Amino acid sequence: MALPSDSRAPLLANYVERSKDRIVATLADWVRIPSISADPAHRRDLETSAELCANLLREAGLRNVAVLPTGTPAGPGGPAVYGDWLDAGPTALTALVYCHHDVQPADPLKEPWSSPPFEPVVNDGVMWGRGTSDDKGQVMAQIEAARGLLLERGSLPVNLKFLVEGEEELGSPHLEALLEHHRDQFAADVVIVADTTMLAPGTPSTSIAMRGLVAFDIALRTAKTDLHSGTWGGTVPNAALLAARLASSLHDADNRVTLPGFYDRVRELSGAEAAAFAAVPFDEEVYKGQAGVAYLEGEAGRTPLERTGTRPTAEVVGIHAGYAGPGIKTIVPAEANLKLALRLVPDQVPDEVEASLRAWLAERVPRGCEVRITRHGGVKPLVTPLAHPAMKALATAIKRVFGVPPLLTREGGSGPEESLSRVLQAPVIALGVSLATDNFHAPDEHFDLGQLWQGVLAGAELLIELGKLEDVHGQLPGD
Amino acid sequence: MALPSDSRAPLLANYVERSKDRIVATLADWVRIPSISADPAHRRDLETSAELCANLLREAGLRNVAVLPTGTPAGPGGPAVYGDWLDAGPTALTALVYCHHDVQPADPLKEPWSSPPFEPVVNDGVMWGRGTSDDKGQVMAQIEAARGLLLERGSLPVNLKFLVEGEEELGSPHLEALLEHHRDQFAADVVIVADTTMLAPGTPSTSIAMRGLVAFDIALRTAKTDLHSGTWGGTVPNAALLAARLASSLHDADNRVTLPGFYDRVRELSGAEAAAFAAVPFDEEVYKGQAGVAYLEGEAGRTPLERTGTRPTAEVVGIHAGYAGPGIKTIVPAEANLKLALRLVPDQVPDEVEASLRAWLAERVPRGCEVRITRHGGVKPLVTPLAHPAMKALATAIKRVFGVPPLLTREGGSGPEESLSRVLQAPVIALGVSLATDNFHAPDEHFDLGQLWQGVLAGAELLIELGKLEDVHGQLPGD
Repeated sequence: MALPSDSRAPLLANYVERSKDRIVATLADWVRIPSISADPAHRRDLETSAELCANLLREAGLRNVAVLPTGTPAGPGGPAVYGDWLDAGPTALTALVYCHHDVQPADPLKEPWSSPPFEPVVNDGVMWGRGTSDDKGQVMAQIEAARGLLLERGSLPVNLKFLVEGEEELGSPHLEALLEHHRDQFAADVVIVADTTMLAPGTPSTSIAMRGLVAFDIALRTAKTDLHSGTWGGTVPNAALLAARLASSLHDADNRVTLPGFYDRVRELSGAEAAAFAAVPFDEEVYKGQAGVAYLEGEAGRTPLERTGTRPTAEVVGIHAGYAGPGIKTIVPAEANLKLALRLVPDQVPDEVEASLRAWLAERVPRGCEVRITRHGGVKPLVTPLAHPAMKALATAIKRVFGVPPLLTREGGSGPEESLSRVLQAPVIALGVSLATDNFHAPDEHFDLGQLWQGVLAGAELLIELGKLEDVHGQLPGD
Repeated sequence: MALPSDSRAPLLANYVERSKDRIVATLADWVRIPSISADPAHRRDLETSAELCANLLREAGLRNVAVLPTGTPAGPGGPAVYGDWLDAGPTALTALVYCHHDVQPADPLKEPWSSPPFEPVVNDGVMWGRGTSDDKGQVMAQIEAARGLLLERGSLPVNLKFLVEGEEELGSPHLEALLEHHRDQFAADVVIVADTTMLAPGTPSTSIAMRGLVAFDIALRTAKTDLHSGTWGGTVPNAALLAARLASSLHDADNRVTLPGFYDRVRELSGAEAAAFAAVPFDEEVYKGQAGVAYLEGEAGRTPLERTGTRPTAEVVGIHAGYAGPGIKTIVPAEANLKLALRLVPDQVPDEVEASLRAWLAERVPRGCEVRITRHGGVKPLVTPLAHPAMKALATAIKRVFGVPPLLTREGGSGPEESLSRVLQAPVIALGVSLATDNFHAPDEHFDLGQLWQGVLAGAELLIELGKLEDVHGQLPGD
């Protein structure tokens, strides 16, 4: 991406310098609130976290700040927080910052933390604690960007809205309903997602695509009841074996997914996209270390980054059949459950993948077995149009803060971005300053405060650059 | 088997006629005790059941009756019951009757019973209730055989011992230690197992072989922790998929087990065995109905009865990896557990099968994956020598009661028979009058009282026939 030469210092450099202590103290206060959306026991903490977030928005100068309940009274969801500043004038662009204040459970992996997850500590410029990087630290960066600009200039260059979700870590079960319900209030020309990573310190990057997702729960039954393996073993169908055979036939010898027509709609990268992708630095040993694996495997003829960023995949996320206790029980299992999650890329369509899976199963499951297929989710793959003016604004802002423009990456997973883009009919750009090594979703989550400061600076510069644009509405993904 | 023509009526015919009401009432009392060995909450019931059994033995005229604790004080097992009658004289043969008083849980399958499992009812000559067939009804038959003979003749034709186990339904975890500890007390020339089935009413049969068993718990780890399927899916190893691939490669296209050398030692049936086997009636539809399956599968070129009776098999008894809850969790599982149970036939050796499995795994599990293999059990296949005099005694007794000699079958599974045979150095013969349709291990267990009366008659005739033998000690399996 060709950018104008531009050596002005970031506008909020001084603001950040004199605000560091306050920001760190405030972030620590927030991290102390265990706003774990997955655990109903932390519902009150989630509400306290939302109130703290609302206060931060108010103190920053945002208006119309409100905590928005989600879900139903019978099944309440995590509360979201909204705030806006809309005095940039009728021709100015409107940006909506999306991020979230809920956090992962402290110990999904039952491994020890070096320091208690909800008692944040700062060591050598790094804050340790659950939610420091995902996502409270990044939310702070964007709120401080607005606060600093309002303080330094008395106004913002764009109309700005914040939507801080309260159940992103649950897969945003009520986000779409929330967006639909507040569609006019949330309306924006561009959505800025502040919940992504950059490749490495000093190597900014931004995601221009996210894979879609469709998942299936497949329940199999081969007999009325579990059977004794001595009496019947070797001559009756075994549900565990059937599930294993299905799972193992999901890929061919080249690790390509065997669902019929699965690759028919897969769009190969354009020349520009392929070049951008090839420019992303990659060290296989580092990558394996980050994943905690000893080897890589996947679709033949594709690099690891191509596989996760540009190619559709099918994962066995669960397989369960038969005896699970200690020792052995000599049964032929009658029931099995197989859970598959398929990541989709443009232009795959969840409904078509479901039809293909059903045909695939019909071919492989013997007559007389019961099969129940339950589909979960159906997120279309998302691509940010490279030519959209907001992308150039983002690149300019990042170059001003980091000295280099962002590398363009693709995210393997899909968060709420697809809903935001679709319901609000706006392009989604990603300004993320977390690092893949921050251990979000794992013990010892942490956030480099240097990344936080750069996040504040880049957030402000992005608003300034977006303020120079006019009439970008309607330049949607795919346009 | 050529048997002498012999039309004498069974000796205890009158005894049975006049004792029916008492026997039925006693059995019902016993069935009312939920002696479920799998559930620690029923420990007291197991003890009550053992006391009732001990009283039955005493009332029958057995001596030295005792309830024998098993396990350790820290981890007590189900109590066994012993009793004997040893006045047949020094040249008479000694027989040990093995059976058990513990029962299966009432609802392993969470399906409803037509009447409460521990409130036995008799309808049309059938008693319904947990343990009626497996094994309290069959224990009653053998105790009554001894009681009737002692009443009618004042003595028994053999020295007789009863060993009524209290944890057969758990896989007899302490039986071997119990046998070792009481080796001299339990010493016998022949073991009569009263815990097997016959093919159909009017079609007596006896098992002359039981498959051995060796089982493995295989723990796999492909990554340090579960990974996000969006970020990593498609390029890192997936433990669930690895387990599925291992399970599905356990058999080839002919459903033959792929462990190297697995069939090398498998003995094909002799001409006489094959003829006996071919004489067993088989109706595939009935068989499928009994199993509750819609189709059969297994080793190519073998009939269902050959597969379960004469061929080694490998069953996936459990496969567990990844997410098991409702809906979907988008992970790449890091850990998997695979449980395999292999049934062995003569002359396979558990140790050799283990070595073969380890080689097989080494070939299939990629470097960098952790594999932990835990072996459970190691029961050698058991064959009763057809030429042993006790087999002819059994056949004569059965013909006298049922009018036809027993068909010779092989049991697919191995119970405690291998331990009994090995520790006591005695051949094991099976006098079973339960039917495969009795729903043992399932809801609505029941026992046809007609089978019970024939069991009493046949038990007495067997003791009479064994009383005609001398000096059979040392004629062991394989001799």
